[in-house]
Amino acid sequence: MAKKISVHSKKREELINITSEVKTFINEAGISNGTIAVFIPHTTAAVTINENADPDVKHDLILALNRISPDLPAFKHTEGNSDAHTKSSLIGCSLNVIVNNGDLILGTWQSIYFCEFDGPRHRTVIFQAN
Amino acid sequence: MAKKISVHSKKREELINITSEVKTFINEAGISNGTIAVFIPHTTAAVTINENADPDVKHDLILALNRISPDLPAFKHTEGNSDAHTKSSLIGCSLNVIVNNGDLILGTWQSIYFCEFDGPRHRTVIFQAN
Amino acid sequence: MAKKISVHSKKREELINITSEVKTFINEAGISNGTIAVFIPHTTAAVTINENADPDVKHDLILALNRISPDLPAFKHTEGNSDAHTKSSLIGCSLNVIVNNGDLILGTWQSIYFCEFDGPRHRTVIFQAN
Repeated sequence: MAKKISVHSKKREELINITSEVKTFINEAGISNGTIAVFIPHTTAAVTINENADPDVKHDLILALNRISPDLPAFKHTEGNSDAHTKSSLIGCSLNVIVNNGDLILGTWQSIYFCEFDGPRHRTVIFQAN
Repeated sequence: MAKKISVHSKKREELINITSEVKTFINEAGISNGTIAVFIPHTTAAVTINENADPDVKHDLILALNRISPDLPAFKHTEGNSDAHTKSSLIGCSLNVIVNNGDLILGTWQSIYFCEFDGPRHRTVIFQAN
Repeated sequence: MAKKISVHSKKREELINITSEVKTFINEAGISNGTIAVFIPHTTAAVTINENADPDVKHDLILALNRISPDLPAFKHTEGNSDAHTKSSLIGCSLNVIVNNGDLILGTWQSIYFCEFDGPRHRTVIFQAN
């Protein structure tokens, strides 16, 4: 069965580490070998994997994404968040991670991040074994 | 077994809602709990999830992607569609969605879109239970 | 069980075709129908599917990504590779591919590429049946 968790963002753009929540799901679901889907049921948020060592990488990633997908004068959507919808599709709302012998398999410097692009908001993340 | 469906695009860039086709696959395959892979077997198309309420979001997403990945004078590929190949890799040709108690789990504002970046063309989308 | 393979990149940015390695994994694991997760345990690399026919597409994709995610003066991360971290999140480190009757299902022009954004380096790719 799928599991939902809550994430509360505090800024318009924010990367929130959810790696421990994924590990908790793997333990609760008793998964030994396979893969896990991490899914974000929002259209102005996303999920990515990136560096967990130097917090400046999170700063730089948000900076780069704001330059890649700025607010554009030609946008028609009146909510003023089309830049966030674009970032959501660029980064993606769905991710697959691998479990081996009960352990989440990530590289040394990798963590899983919920990506807020139109916060602050109360958000949901869904996990499901594939 | 995998299922193939046909999608016919009418413009060079177009987002086509395929959510109902994913739901039909879930019903036909009798999937109760798990995940579904949605795969696009083309290199100038992609699949994404984004807002289904205001059609202006589709307009803005295509506008933003054309600004992010324009045709560049330095491109070598002689077919003139390297911008579309780039968009395909940025958005991605593979997506995982969650099924719970036989229902496709999407957020309130989410739909699944086939993304045409070099149409109009006859295209294929493939579904497979993970 | 998950399988790890090694990939050795020779340039800072490079797309390396790993399709035959995915096919070998499918044969070794004896997978008939289902999906395979391809996972990159690095934060300055990624995995994508794109054209295998004209090598100019690889050239153009790297050219476009360097324009989309250049080195920025405002980056704080002192390793000088925040452009590569950004490319990793844009393209993604996780991919799902479909297997049908023991065959990897790809479009005519599609191959699976390991994407190096901060090489040359010795890298790892991980495969797991979903």
